[in-house]
Amino acid sequence: MIIRDFIAPDLSHGFFETLTSLADVGFDINNPESMSKACEIYRKRLTAGILTYVAVLSPSTIPGTDGELIVGTVTLLPDWKFIHEGSLVYHLEDVAVHKAHQGKHIGQDLIRYAIQQATTRGAYKIVAFCDKELTPYYEKLGFKNHDSGLRLDL
Amino acid sequence: MIIRDFIAPDLSHGFFETLTSLADVGFDINNPESMSKACEIYRKRLTAGILTYVAVLSPSTIPGTDGELIVGTVTLLPDWKFIHEGSLVYHLEDVAVHKAHQGKHIGQDLIRYAIQQATTRGAYKIVAFCDKELTPYYEKLGFKNHDSGLRLDL
Repeated sequence: MIIRDFIAPDLSHGFFETLTSLADVGFDINNPESMSKACEIYRKRLTAGILTYVAVLSPSTIPGTDGELIVGTVTLLPDWKFIHEGSLVYHLEDVAVHKAHQGKHIGQDLIRYAIQQATTRGAYKIVAFCDKELTPYYEKLGFKNHDSGLRLDL
Repeated sequence: MIIRDFIAPDLSHGFFETLTSLADVGFDINNPESMSKACEIYRKRLTAGILTYVAVLSPSTIPGTDGELIVGTVTLLPDWKFIHEGSLVYHLEDVAVHKAHQGKHIGQDLIRYAIQQATTRGAYKIVAFCDKELTPYYEKLGFKNHDSGLRLDL
């Protein structure tokens, strides 16, 4: 397994199945109109500087396929702050591992990779929300339970 | 007091003093090099689609001045998601009120304004971090304490 930047063809190679472990996705890779909408989201993410990483199995490890398979993903959302003389914070978002590949530390590897990337890009902290029962999982990776995580449904 | 979009000249009209109630800012409005760096952050925020709003007192209400005075600010950070068939979440960030103008509901007015703006733009939820003791303040505005808020210092 390797971890690398997300690229558009990944949309058709297991990326949505992977995200489905987190929430419903709704895009249909066999429907051009649906995929056009997915690509529009991808462009908005690129413009916003959102970093998307994927964990990938190579074709040689997947019997009966001829392409890579996405088995995990993580997102870093950049927040350019005026405070601290112009500082960068990343929000860790959408950590997801394909249901058939959970329990193999892929999520931890993705988060560690994201921490490296945020450090390289000069961020001074990473923030994240998590379900309260997952707090110990993130604490093992160095996070501290610092604030309340709030949500307002519109 | 009115609430409106942040514009670059606001940088010199109390915006940094307002943010100082939240954290150190460090920019010097009398130093062109420092202000050039602040403008660079502003451009990065614009490119990323970050929405900045300010609460403003008009000159007529401020004896001895000839310009507007920024007394509050709030930020909406957009997060374009692949989940839910391409959905938009805003992160509420950097809610700050000038120390001399606290206790006048300016923070509440700014957050309500941000909620309206996020709704108009089609977001399905707003998320936020807050100090645990401020949770009831946000609950009055409709937020729910939903998750743990995590932080990793780099």
